[in-house]
Amino acid sequence: MPQSTADWVIEARWILPMTDAGQVLEDHSLIMGNGRILGVLPQSTARSRYPQTPILQRPHHALLPGLINAHTHAAMSLFRGFADGLPLMQWLTQEIWPMERRFVTAQFARDGVLLSVAEMLRAGITCFGDMYFFPDQTAKAAAEQGIRAVVGMPVADFKSPWAQSPEEYLSKALSVRDEYRGHPWITTAFAPHAPYTVADETFVRIRTLADELDSPVMIHLHESAHEVSESLRTHGVRPIERLERLGMLNPSMNAVHMVHVSPSDIELAQRSGISVTVCPESNLKLGNGAPPVSQWRQSQVPVGVGTDGAASNNDQDLWPEIKLAALLSRASSDSAPTVSAWDALAMATRGGAAALGLSDQIGTLEPGKWADLCCVNFDHPAMQPVYDPCSQLVYCAGRDLVSDVWVAGRHLLSDSRLTRLDWADVRDRAQGWALRMRRR
Amino acid sequence: MPQSTADWVIEARWILPMTDAGQVLEDHSLIMGNGRILGVLPQSTARSRYPQTPILQRPHHALLPGLINAHTHAAMSLFRGFADGLPLMQWLTQEIWPMERRFVTAQFARDGVLLSVAEMLRAGITCFGDMYFFPDQTAKAAAEQGIRAVVGMPVADFKSPWAQSPEEYLSKALSVRDEYRGHPWITTAFAPHAPYTVADETFVRIRTLADELDSPVMIHLHESAHEVSESLRTHGVRPIERLERLGMLNPSMNAVHMVHVSPSDIELAQRSGISVTVCPESNLKLGNGAPPVSQWRQSQVPVGVGTDGAASNNDQDLWPEIKLAALLSRASSDSAPTVSAWDALAMATRGGAAALGLSDQIGTLEPGKWADLCCVNFDHPAMQPVYDPCSQLVYCAGRDLVSDVWVAGRHLLSDSRLTRLDWADVRDRAQGWALRMRRR
Repeated sequence: MPQSTADWVIEARWILPMTDAGQVLEDHSLIMGNGRILGVLPQSTARSRYPQTPILQRPHHALLPGLINAHTHAAMSLFRGFADGLPLMQWLTQEIWPMERRFVTAQFARDGVLLSVAEMLRAGITCFGDMYFFPDQTAKAAAEQGIRAVVGMPVADFKSPWAQSPEEYLSKALSVRDEYRGHPWITTAFAPHAPYTVADETFVRIRTLADELDSPVMIHLHESAHEVSESLRTHGVRPIERLERLGMLNPSMNAVHMVHVSPSDIELAQRSGISVTVCPESNLKLGNGAPPVSQWRQSQVPVGVGTDGAASNNDQDLWPEIKLAALLSRASSDSAPTVSAWDALAMATRGGAAALGLSDQIGTLEPGKWADLCCVNFDHPAMQPVYDPCSQLVYCAGRDLVSDVWVAGRHLLSDSRLTRLDWADVRDRAQGWALRMRRR
Repeated sequence: MPQSTADWVIEARWILPMTDAGQVLEDHSLIMGNGRILGVLPQSTARSRYPQTPILQRPHHALLPGLINAHTHAAMSLFRGFADGLPLMQWLTQEIWPMERRFVTAQFARDGVLLSVAEMLRAGITCFGDMYFFPDQTAKAAAEQGIRAVVGMPVADFKSPWAQSPEEYLSKALSVRDEYRGHPWITTAFAPHAPYTVADETFVRIRTLADELDSPVMIHLHESAHEVSESLRTHGVRPIERLERLGMLNPSMNAVHMVHVSPSDIELAQRSGISVTVCPESNLKLGNGAPPVSQWRQSQVPVGVGTDGAASNNDQDLWPEIKLAALLSRASSDSAPTVSAWDALAMATRGGAAALGLSDQIGTLEPGKWADLCCVNFDHPAMQPVYDPCSQLVYCAGRDLVSDVWVAGRHLLSDSRLTRLDWADVRDRAQGWALRMRRR
């Protein structure tokens, strides 16, 4: 690796490369250049090998891969807490869906995504997997702000402000895909909404296109008990079995939620090579129960973690999600947690990269990968004293302690401040939408 | 109320008095004087009625009663994350207890409590219920720092660095009690450790003393399934039934945890007038399962919420606890949460006051109560836009957004900075202890 390309050396108290289970490097440096990681070295070695490169010191901090929010609906931040506390179907059919039909436009999507980008960057999230109407706006806002995104292009057999038919969803998806092909931090995926909103023939078309274009696919799957029983009633098989029959299951597929799963569902997921994204807070909040994080962790299926949209969480912060994932894994006091602190952190980093099909690009701190980084300050009462930095990160850290975020080497959060995004403008726009929606 | 005693008027965007369910006052002011609340009035009325009183403006903020951490072991913050991730009994018997015997001294307790006070104040906690060795140090540190505390004086039939026999525990308890009698923000309680560590005759002595002295009593109760089955085996009754037979149950009693409870346990709790404190994160982390928050909420039993000590949580932050309590209450998607956002916030304010026997002093914003206050800044991406401030506080807020804390009118946190506590000194002491313990 030529030394001349190094742009910055970051010296941190601890570095967690997330390559080897439990590994925490003390007093190491990460060297970045051209937006990529050039290496991770002991501080003295780095100083002698890169004498001309400016050094950024983070003496009370842990440096780790940027967190990956593998599933959200970023534009929905404008519905945060809207009519919250109702039973699920009443909330959806009487509140959220009518508001979506009436208010969701390209401008709504843009303003909502920018609000979510601000929230996610401040929480150490460098990449998000998204699924919502107006994915062109999601891609555009993320591209402008410099945050990495895997933009799911929705496909469904229902009408929305974005498209009127599966054909229109697909043709719009292809044009968004074309626009961002080769973009360094925006990629796209097909996002069939869910088994109960997508017809067999639509799935077949999506699979054909995804295979031709070598594209990831993401779908809500096995979120509720009702979804599973309805599939059995209508199709005679469980949702994941139906997808298998339609040829949908292969390593390009990320199945989001996977709460109500049987041992055979897990076995099928494993055999077909799909990945899974769990969203623990959203599942609890919507009354779907807790995702079986222990069983997913014990399977060979790659597992990422997502916040889900702000309408059902209500924040887009992975710190509480990984804490909850670890807590929920402690089945009994006779056993150790089946999701260790390192496992939980892995779900939010390398697991998310795998879920989004980006394992060769991000998710660990290894030479050649993008410099997508998150730095966490331990100089806070909740983080002291320190016996195990990894335990501290999972059980005590929070968005407040994220000091810095880099995406592809760009310093988007510095000293806990957004360097690029105009918060006052974003906030005022969000408040404007809320005012209009409250007046409906 | 004479106007001349007003010291400050705080103007906030929202005020949540926590007196009436769901009530949120917009553009009101809280008037404080002599450490007490004088009133809550519309801003214009307050300005004309208190023209000479200085005004503190909090235009993006919600003002609410200070949060009450009804159960912790503050000194144990020095064990935060220590040997974390082991099965419960191995962790206790091979790690925590040997370290306690070797390291816990008056100085250890003081340094640990100060660390916890820093952590709790920054999270908006104005009062904590404690239970640990060296309660004299807990009381002293809390008194010095100005944070309100209900200091549980431990009693047990085991030896510890604090006392060698139930007699010694009790005599030391009485002397701590004497020292703080009449103190404006320190009160004391008897704290028999748990049914399995306290003999019948010790319970009887505690009840006699508590009745004579009109003192609260706090105890760990029904924390694990093992505790219940052992009681049935040894005493032939469930732990709460044993306490009833011993005359321990009356409104002075706060039962902490109450995870493994039958309908008859809940009925007995209700009939006897005790209060309960739930510690959701600690219960999950130690493998005891989730406390039945919905059932407690639906009962007539006053319910507070606690973090438990940092060795088993691993933070002392009530924001994630109340979010988790609300999430855990959502039994199915067909129903609304049985613990609403307001209910969850009530657990951390008025519920905690009831649990600690301080309902007439703190827990709501009413004239005559102490000015124990917490102010939360909504000018953050995770808090916008705002449809329901109460939902935002429970589902989106966090320690990072606590801008101000007052205890009995003293401004202990201002612009998110500790005004009194020397953080660098507290941190260095905590790190010193960790260094010694790691070297053991």
